[in-house]
Amino acid sequence: MPILRPLPERLLLGPGPSNAHPSVLEAMGRPLVGHLDPEFIALLDRLKAGLRTLFGTSNAMTLPLSATGSAGMEAALVNLLEPGDTVVVGVNGVFGGRMAEVARRAGAVVTTVEATWGTILDATEMADAISFVRPRVVAFVHAETSTGVCQPVEAIAQAAKQVDAMLILDCVTSLAGRPVELDTWGIDAAYSGSQKCLSCSPGMSPVSFSDRAIEHIQKRKTPVQSWFLDLSLLAGYYAGAKRTYHHTAPITATYGLAAGVDRVLEEGLEARFERHTSAAKRLIEGLEPMGFECLVRAEDRLPMLTSVRLPERVGTLGEAAVRTRLLDDFGIEVGGGLGPLAGAIWRIGLMGENARPEPVDRLLEALHEILD
Amino acid sequence: MPILRPLPERLLLGPGPSNAHPSVLEAMGRPLVGHLDPEFIALLDRLKAGLRTLFGTSNAMTLPLSATGSAGMEAALVNLLEPGDTVVVGVNGVFGGRMAEVARRAGAVVTTVEATWGTILDATEMADAISFVRPRVVAFVHAETSTGVCQPVEAIAQAAKQVDAMLILDCVTSLAGRPVELDTWGIDAAYSGSQKCLSCSPGMSPVSFSDRAIEHIQKRKTPVQSWFLDLSLLAGYYAGAKRTYHHTAPITATYGLAAGVDRVLEEGLEARFERHTSAAKRLIEGLEPMGFECLVRAEDRLPMLTSVRLPERVGTLGEAAVRTRLLDDFGIEVGGGLGPLAGAIWRIGLMGENARPEPVDRLLEALHEILD
Repeated sequence: MPILRPLPERLLLGPGPSNAHPSVLEAMGRPLVGHLDPEFIALLDRLKAGLRTLFGTSNAMTLPLSATGSAGMEAALVNLLEPGDTVVVGVNGVFGGRMAEVARRAGAVVTTVEATWGTILDATEMADAISFVRPRVVAFVHAETSTGVCQPVEAIAQAAKQVDAMLILDCVTSLAGRPVELDTWGIDAAYSGSQKCLSCSPGMSPVSFSDRAIEHIQKRKTPVQSWFLDLSLLAGYYAGAKRTYHHTAPITATYGLAAGVDRVLEEGLEARFERHTSAAKRLIEGLEPMGFECLVRAEDRLPMLTSVRLPERVGTLGEAAVRTRLLDDFGIEVGGGLGPLAGAIWRIGLMGENARPEPVDRLLEALHEILD
Repeated sequence: MPILRPLPERLLLGPGPSNAHPSVLEAMGRPLVGHLDPEFIALLDRLKAGLRTLFGTSNAMTLPLSATGSAGMEAALVNLLEPGDTVVVGVNGVFGGRMAEVARRAGAVVTTVEATWGTILDATEMADAISFVRPRVVAFVHAETSTGVCQPVEAIAQAAKQVDAMLILDCVTSLAGRPVELDTWGIDAAYSGSQKCLSCSPGMSPVSFSDRAIEHIQKRKTPVQSWFLDLSLLAGYYAGAKRTYHHTAPITATYGLAAGVDRVLEEGLEARFERHTSAAKRLIEGLEPMGFECLVRAEDRLPMLTSVRLPERVGTLGEAAVRTRLLDDFGIEVGGGLGPLAGAIWRIGLMGENARPEPVDRLLEALHEILD
C-alpha cells in the first residue's frame, strides 16, 4: 500500500491552513529549477517586492523565510536579541506566550504584560512596562490566532519608540487579510505565514526587517544562536549582487507563495480586506441566532478568525464530537480552542480564498443539520 | 506583470535539487487538508514508517522535519548538545564545517578533526580525538556534498561507542542513494534532505533520533535553544496517541515527500543504489577522456555526486561561463565548487530520478558541443 493515498476534500475553516487557490496548486505542480538558477533568483526578487507591498514597507530585507510562521517568529527574536537583553512581550494568547518562551530560550530577560485571552493588551499597561524596563525589544501579536483578537498597534509602537526599543510584530494571521503597515507603524521585524490569508500551503514565512534592525544585527557581540535563521547569513542568498548558497530554498513552496501573492495583488488589498470583513459579518449573523456567542467584543475582532463560545446543544453533543461530525459528514474543518479556551470555544477561519459567502453558508447549513 | 512567470525546463545535475518525478509534482498539486486532520496524521504515520525503512532503523522518532536539511542538522545538534558539552566534529568539507559552527552556536566546546577536502576523515585521527576528549557527541558527514566524498562509518562509530558518546550522522546526500544503516551503525541522530536522492522539492528534512537520544534530550538541564526544533515539543505532534499542535506542518511538501518515498520503496533500495552506481560509472567514463579528473579516489567516491577537476579548455573559456552556457543553451545545471574548491571543480549530481543513462548522455553531448 502506498504512503500517499487519495485524500478527502476539505473546506478548511479552522485557524489555518486555508484552502489554496487552484492557481497556487497549479504553481506547486510545476517542475523544479535550481535554487541558484538566475531565473529563480529573479523570481525571488519579484516575490520580495510583492511581499513589501503586502507588509506596507520599503524594507530591503523582506523575504520568504524557508519554514513555517513559528520559525519566522524565532528568526525575529533570535536575530534581534542577545543573551541578557531585555524584552517586553505582550501575552494575551498562545502566540504571545510563544514569543516570550522563544525570547527566554534566546537568553533574554523577559517581562510579560498579560491580558485575559479574548481581550486586547492594555496599551497603558504595555507603555508603563516599556517605560519602566526600557527594553531592547518590544514584541506583541497583531492578530492573535488563538483568540481572534486584533491588537491596535500605534499606541504600543509609540511607547516603544520613546525608549528607542526595537519592535517585533506577529502578523501571521493578519497579512493580506487586514491592513498591515510596517513603515507607518515603525515596526522593525515582522513575520507571517503562507497558509492563512495568503491561501498557500503552510511552510513559508514572509518576514521583513527594517534597516535599523539589520544595523542592530550587524553590531551584535555574539553570533545569532541559530545558524539556519541567522539573517546576516541569509542576506548573502536573498540580497546583494552575488547570491551565495546558504541553504537550499524550497522551490515548490516559493512557486506557490508567488502565485498566492499574485492573487492578492490582482485582487487588490482593499478589496481583499473588504471581502474578509463581509464574510465575518455574514458568519456572525448566522451563528448568533444559533446560540454561538463571540468571545471577542466587536471592535477588537479579527475578520479572518472568529472565536465563538458554544451553545449548550454543542456541549451536550460534545464539542469535539460535533467538530468530528462536521469533518466526517460535511468535509468541513473548524478549529477548537487552545490552552484555557480548549473545549470552550471554536475558532472559525475565513481566510484568503475562503472569505466568501459560499463557505460561510456551507458551514451554517451543516451546523443547522447537526444541531437543529 | 505577475511574480510567477513561466520557468525554463532544467535538467538538474548539480548538488541538489534534482528533478522531481512527475508523481511527486502531481502530489504537490493536490488540494490541502489540515495539519490536524486524522487523514493527514495517518499519512504522517505511514511516511514515518517509510522513512524508517530508508534510514535502516526502528527509531520511533523518525519524522519529516518541516524545513531544509540545514535545519535538520541544527535540530540534531541543538537537541543533543547543552552549553558546555564537548563535541568532536569531523571536517573535510563545507558540511562538516557547518556542523562545527552550529555546535559552537549551541554553546558546545568543539574539537574538529580536519582532513583535506576531497579525502575521507582519517578514522585513527577521529578515534584518537574521541578517546582524548571523551566527548558528549561525535558528529560527521556520511556524504560530503561539497566534495563528493563518502565517509566509512563503522570505525568512527566504534570509537564513539567506546566512550559512550552520542553519534550524529549527516545523510543529506546519501539517503536513498546508497546504503544508510542507522541501527547497524549505532547512530543516535541523523538527518537528510528531500531534494537529493529522494527527488522531491527542497524544504523537508527527514530526521531520525534513537531512543537513547530521546532519553538524553529528556534529561537535559537546559531547554533546547530552538523552540521550533525542540524535539520534545515536536514529539507532541509527531508521536503519541493525542497529536497536539506545535507548528503547522507543510502539507504540500509532505504530500511530495510521501510520493517520493513511495517511488523509492516501489523501486527497491538495492535497485536504486545500483542505478546510482551505474550512472556515476557512465558519467566518469564519459568525462575522463575529455580531460576531467575525479577529485576523489575511486574507493571513496559518492555515486550520486561526482566532483571533477576541470580540463584546461574549461579554464580557458572560464568555468563559470561554461556552466552558464550549459544552463542557457542546453538547460543543464551543474554545480560549482565551494570554499577552497570554488573555481577548481564542478560537482555533478546524478541523484534520484536523474541517476539514469539519459541525463548522463545529455550532459556529455552538451559538453562535447561546447568544448570540442
